[in-house]
Amino acid sequence: MCAEEENIQIDWEKCPIHNTLEAIRGKWDYKIILSLNQGSKRFGELLESLQGISAKTLTYSLKKLEKKNIIEKNVYLVVPAHVEYTLSNKGMALKNVFHEMRKWGRTWEK
Amino acid sequence: MCAEEENIQIDWEKCPIHNTLEAIRGKWDYKIILSLNQGSKRFGELLESLQGISAKTLTYSLKKLEKKNIIEKNVYLVVPAHVEYTLSNKGMALKNVFHEMRKWGRTWEK
Repeated sequence: MCAEEENIQIDWEKCPIHNTLEAIRGKWDYKIILSLNQGSKRFGELLESLQGISAKTLTYSLKKLEKKNIIEKNVYLVVPAHVEYTLSNKGMALKNVFHEMRKWGRTWEK
Repeated sequence: MCAEEENIQIDWEKCPIHNTLEAIRGKWDYKIILSLNQGSKRFGELLESLQGISAKTLTYSLKKLEKKNIIEKNVYLVVPAHVEYTLSNKGMALKNVFHEMRKWGRTWEK
């Protein structure tokens, strides 16, 4: 998967599977992505949809995901002005990963 | 993905995606699975293939993965007796998840 030949020590920094897991495995990261997978949300809506997350942690996680270009922050200069978070193309492209996870989880983690 | 209708709070314990990530996201868990994906290995071979892992941590992670039925421990009563670790069917079925992760990682995490 990551090392072509057997018994070669895997260089995890160059392993695409490792990098994908690093991008989504944070306690709240994949939960935020899954919540935004249902459509754009404001901060308050995200806070409400993610039981147990604090505003501070949500702020930190959103900044992390934005920095990784997995989500986008859109500012609407209307009255009143507001901010919405949405999945980027990169974020939306995770749907195949989540699709396979969902299948495996349903089959093996009942 | 996990909540059928929008704005319903997701019950993570029942979410197959959450359960799949919980099964593989441990720092060394998916690395052990990927290493065994290349074939059965003895403890020493695993230790060698996973740079930076301690024998204590490897022992703990192997027990965890065995308890989740993702890997199997085979004892060979030959002279000298030895133990090999291998992916179970459940473990092997993760290959589609890793396949999609590899694709996403190669596309978006260069």
